[in-house]
Order: sequence, then C-alpha cells, then structure tokens
Amino acid sequence: MDLHYLFLSLALIIFFGRVLGDLFNKFGIPAVLGEIFAGIILGVSGFGLIEINDAIKVLAEIGIILLLFKVGLEADVHQLKKVGVPAIIVATVGATLPMVFGAVASYYLFNLPLATSLFIGGTLTATSIGITVKVLTDLGKMNHRFAQIVLAAAVLDDIFGVIVLAVLYEFAKKGTVDINATLTMIFYIATFFVLAPILAKIMAKLINIFSNKLQSQEFIPVAVMSMIFFFAFLSHEVGSPEILGAFTVGLALSRRFVIPLAAFLKVEEKEKMAEKIEHSIDPLVFILTPIFFVSIGLSLNLKAIDFTSFDFWKLSVVLLIIAVLGKVLSGFFIKGKTKEKLLIGFSMLPRGEVGLIFAELGKNSKLFDDLLYAVIIFVVAFTTLISPIILKMLAKD
Amino acid sequence: MDLHYLFLSLALIIFFGRVLGDLFNKFGIPAVLGEIFAGIILGVSGFGLIEINDAIKVLAEIGIILLLFKVGLEADVHQLKKVGVPAIIVATVGATLPMVFGAVASYYLFNLPLATSLFIGGTLTATSIGITVKVLTDLGKMNHRFAQIVLAAAVLDDIFGVIVLAVLYEFAKKGTVDINATLTMIFYIATFFVLAPILAKIMAKLINIFSNKLQSQEFIPVAVMSMIFFFAFLSHEVGSPEILGAFTVGLALSRRFVIPLAAFLKVEEKEKMAEKIEHSIDPLVFILTPIFFVSIGLSLNLKAIDFTSFDFWKLSVVLLIIAVLGKVLSGFFIKGKTKEKLLIGFSMLPRGEVGLIFAELGKNSKLFDDLLYAVIIFVVAFTTLISPIILKMLAKD
Repeated sequence: MDLHYLFLSLALIIFFGRVLGDLFNKFGIPAVLGEIFAGIILGVSGFGLIEINDAIKVLAEIGIILLLFKVGLEADVHQLKKVGVPAIIVATVGATLPMVFGAVASYYLFNLPLATSLFIGGTLTATSIGITVKVLTDLGKMNHRFAQIVLAAAVLDDIFGVIVLAVLYEFAKKGTVDINATLTMIFYIATFFVLAPILAKIMAKLINIFSNKLQSQEFIPVAVMSMIFFFAFLSHEVGSPEILGAFTVGLALSRRFVIPLAAFLKVEEKEKMAEKIEHSIDPLVFILTPIFFVSIGLSLNLKAIDFTSFDFWKLSVVLLIIAVLGKVLSGFFIKGKTKEKLLIGFSMLPRGEVGLIFAELGKNSKLFDDLLYAVIIFVVAFTTLISPIILKMLAKD
Repeated sequence: MDLHYLFLSLALIIFFGRVLGDLFNKFGIPAVLGEIFAGIILGVSGFGLIEINDAIKVLAEIGIILLLFKVGLEADVHQLKKVGVPAIIVATVGATLPMVFGAVASYYLFNLPLATSLFIGGTLTATSIGITVKVLTDLGKMNHRFAQIVLAAAVLDDIFGVIVLAVLYEFAKKGTVDINATLTMIFYIATFFVLAPILAKIMAKLINIFSNKLQSQEFIPVAVMSMIFFFAFLSHEVGSPEILGAFTVGLALSRRFVIPLAAFLKVEEKEKMAEKIEHSIDPLVFILTPIFFVSIGLSLNLKAIDFTSFDFWKLSVVLLIIAVLGKVLSGFFIKGKTKEKLLIGFSMLPRGEVGLIFAELGKNSKLFDDLLYAVIIFVVAFTTLISPIILKMLAKD
C-alpha cells in the first residue's frame, strides 16, 4: 500500500467533493449529488485519477456510520414509534414490488436464468439510507412526518436488503435455501434491535461513572466513538448492516430516548452529554461522510455501459420503470396527502451503495454478464441521481 | 479485509488507549505511555486480540499527521528561527553520536558484518518526533525555549533519519552509495522546505477567496484538511517524511507566520481563520492521534525477546548506553542551564516508530537475525518508554 498516494487521493476526494457539493448547492442541486459527481469525475468513469481501494472504503464506511449515528442521535424514538405502521407498509411494499416484478420481468420477459432473475430483483430491493437521509437533512425536512416514515422504512428496508442478499447468495451457490438458517438470522436481528439500545444505555451509564472517576474531559467522546464501532461490529455479527448498529447507539443516546432502565440520568445531565457528544462527532462527520458519497461516484463504472446497445436499453428501461414505480407506489399504500406520498416514494428511490454491492456480487459470482452488470449500474446511478433532484423540487413549499 | 473486525479493533484501541492514558495520567505517568501500553496489552506482546493491519496503520498515520499539523499551527516560526543554531547542533550531534558509535561497536566489538553494523547505527539515529511532541504538549512546556530547540531539532533529525535510511538501504542492497543521488535528494528536500510554506500560503489565500464566493462554512476546514493531505504527499515525493509536510502547512497557516506574500490577510481575519481551523481539526486529533500511539504498542513484539539469553543482554546493554548517551549528550553541546540541557537530551531520546521501521526493514532484508531484531525492539521500547517518565520528573519545578 502506498500511503502517500492514498494521501493524494484523499486530498482530491475531500477537496473536489466539497467544491462540487457547494457549487451544486449554489445552483439549487442537492450537495450530495455534487459529491457523487466528484467521484464520477475523479474515478474510472472520468479522468481515472483515483482507483478506489480498501483504505478509502474504510474511511468511507466510518463516514457513513458516523452519519447514521448522528441521525439516530437527533431522531425522536416516540415519533418513530408513532409512524411504525405506515413505515412497515412502505418498507414492505417498497421492497416487495421491485423484488417480485424485477425477478418476474427478468425471468419471463428476458428469459434470464432463475438465480440471475432473483438476484436482479434483489438488487432493486434496498434503499440507500445514507443518500436519503443526507438529502432530507440538507433540505431541513428531517423532523417532518414523511421524513420520519422514510427513516423508519429505510432502516427496515436495509434489514430486508441484507436478508434478501444472504438468502439469494446462498440460493445462487447451493440451489437451495435453508429456511431455518434464515429464520434464525431474523430472530438474531430482531433480538439485537430489542436488546442493543438497553445495552447501549447501560454502557452510557458506566461511561458516565468512569468519566467522573477519571476526571477526564476527553473520555466521554472517545468512549462513545468506541461504542459506535463496537455496535457496528455487533450489528454485523447478528447479520444486520453495520450502519444500523451505529444508528441504534445514536438512538439510545438521544435526548428523547427513555427506557425504564435509563431513568438514572438527570435531564440536564442528558442534555449536556448529548450536546458534548454531538459537538465532538460533528467535525468527523464533516470530513469523513463526503468520502462515502464521493466513493459511490468512484465505484460507478459508467464506462462499462454501452449506450448504443439495443439490448442495454431494452433491459434498462424495463428495470428502471420497475425500480422507480416499485418505490414510488409504496407511498400510496398509506394515508396522507398526495404530496406526502410522493415525497415518501421518491425518498425511498435511491439504491446507491446497496445496489452496487449487489451488482459486484452478481458480477463476481458470474450471475451477471457484462451487459447485465452495465444495466444494473445504470439503474442504480439513475435512481440515485434523480431522487435528490425530484425531492428538492417536491419539498419546495 | 473484514470490516467488522476492524471496527471491533478500533473500538478496543480507542477505548483502552483512553482508559489507560487517563489512568496513567492520574498516577502521574504521561498519558502517551498509557496509550502505548494499551497497544502492548492488546497486541502480539499481550493478549493478541488485535493484529495490526493496513487500515489501522492508515488511521494511525492520519492521526500523527494531524498532530504534527496542530503542532505547526501552534508553533512560532520566529522562535524556531531564533533557536536555529542550537537546534542544528543538537540534531547533528544527536544523530551522529548514536550512528557512529552504534556502527563502530557493532562492527569492532561484536564482529557483525559492515552493512548490518551501519544499519544498527541508523536505527539509533532518528528521534520519534510524535512521542516527544506529545509529551511536551501534555506537560504544557511547548512554549519553553528548550521545547522549541527540541521541536526544531526533531524535525531536522527526522530528515536526517530518512536520508540515512535511504543511503543505508541502497548500500545494503547494492554495496555502493550514489553520492549524486543523495545530494539530489537533499537538494529536493531543502527546496521543498523553502517553497512549501509559500505555496501553502498562496493556497490559503485562494481558499479564502473561494470560500467567500461559495459562501459555504464547511469549505475552509475541508480545504485545509485537503491541503494537509496534499503536502504530506508532496513531502513524501521529495523524499522527506510525510508528517513534515503536514507540519509545514501548520506552520504556514499559524498566526505568527508572516512572509511578504502573506501580507494580504488582515490580522482579525487570520485570527478567525486559524481559530476556525483549529476548532475543526481538534476532534479528529482527539480520536485519531491515540490510534497512532496505541499502534506503536501493537507493533512492539516483546515476545520476540529472549530475556534469558546472555548474547541478548550483552548487545542490548551496549547499544542502550550508546542510544541514551548519544542523545542525552547532544544537549550539552549548546549553552544553557544543566536542567535545560538534560531536558533537551531526554526529549530527543525516544526512537518510537522510526526505530521500528528500521527494525522491520533490517529484518526483512535479512540484515538482522532474530537476536538482533529482538535487541533493536528492546532498545526502541526502552528509549520510548523511559523518556516520558524522566521528562515528567525533570519538568517539575
């Protein structure tokens, strides 16, 4: 590993990510698109200055984990609980429609093999929680009811995504699915999300006691950071995405989260601790989160796409319609104003990094040939890039 | 790469680094030793919970680069210039004595091959600027004259270190030394340190203009971070250590640095910018710098040492005496009080990460056998661990 080239890459990534983010923002386009665009220009699709590597991936992953922690910290558990039912509907419909229609179209319309068809369906399943949350935060809409539904639905969707991925990957390799193993995985994930906030709360209490004994100012932020990493690890261990572990810690430490066990902290103490934590995490989010979005652009190999191919367009248009309608319609299965329904649907649209992971796995396991890989990249790129623009237009009052 | 195990490792590194750092501090031992000790316990010398890997090394390196940037930002160029002559003396003596006596003792006393002997001398040459600076900062002595001499001398020493390493590595591989190439390298490094601050200053001006045009608050800290990475890269390209590139950027952006070209910034503007930068970098230093010190502990394989071997002790005691006296005596070649001379000498003592890099290279190129490798690890560990304790005792008024 050449450390100095990594430093050059990081210099370019954070500089151009910020410049393009700010420029896009100035022209009314969501900043996150500028960041992704910076990656497209710097990476294999553009000038090829930066090849994405493990070190960049690690920093990007820490960036998105911290963003989800921050989102959890600012989230209101009671609000999230209130929107539980509509969120479950949105998540289920938004995951099922693209999955089923994506697989059916691939199998019956395009005569693709069964495993490949199912994998295409899987690719269209999961929403990129990172992009969605970033756009809604930048628009200042995170406290609206629709955004709460989207947040809860995106979390559920992310869990569906890994379960679908695990099941399909097994099916593609062995030709069978172990229902017991799948149920065990779901049981573990469910148990984790019930117990994790309680564990996080107890750890927070211990940190507070320790901190008073040590009389060290630096202790709390470092210990919280350590908790974020630890719960990201735990989350992965039970089979759930790492970012959700970080989200859970954020939720457990947020001002508005109260469990019977957590009554030990006085209100002022909680306020002070939450503020201190947020204050010390923000600059890390500042620098590291854009690395995540730029790295999505770096991973998008648009050169793999042959735009003159008829087969490419045939597949792309059909899958794109399924990918868009599957998510947008999900908003219409719950009560509310049409605008709210549209906001929810388009918020769930971006496939981002989750879709790219499916695409890479599909390619590496030979389920996707070059054409299919290009189609998937195109669909992922399109849903990711169009959603923030539509959301910004819809969100204007 | 298993991302979730990396997260577990990071959780352990930053948590135990902080706990042991704070505990050591409570008992009057410098915190940095607690951090190194955390690494010893977690790593191969202790429970073997964490194996150091590329991702940890990258984060550690970013940590130490940011620390050096911060040191540069807080340094006073005029003070550093004032102590230029004594610093050159300290650096030259402190590098030459251990180099010459280390090589002579190895060659004549222990009858080791010439290349091996020279490499042992080289290992004893360079001071670990990171450890020295951290201890002096924690003691609140960074503004004292002796600390300024140490800082300037350690920077020079670090440059000597890479030149010696490059020359010896070539000699070990080819049996000859290309004097021209060495002189070219020295010329490049010297040119870099003359031009880099001017370039950094011009870039800062551009950043300021850009920032006003973009009207983005996030722009300045991100752009500065990008500059730090870029100068770390440049520094490496000319053959100097990466941390010194970051130090140079810090110096150029510090409040007290004035060059004719830099008269464009108003005083208040400069104050505001420097404050903003420091404010946004601090939390990153907080989390990342301890990873560097813990990783030194992780890299120290104390299990490689056979403490019952007579040969081990014979070599270790002789080299240790040379390693300690070579640096401590360097303080006595300049004017000042005895206490100041001792403070300078012991500040220059820790070999830390630079010594470990030499040890690894020596082992990999078969210049060091297992015994010699163990001796070097022991000497590096001893100088690194003893120096902060002695400094803390000496610094008490």
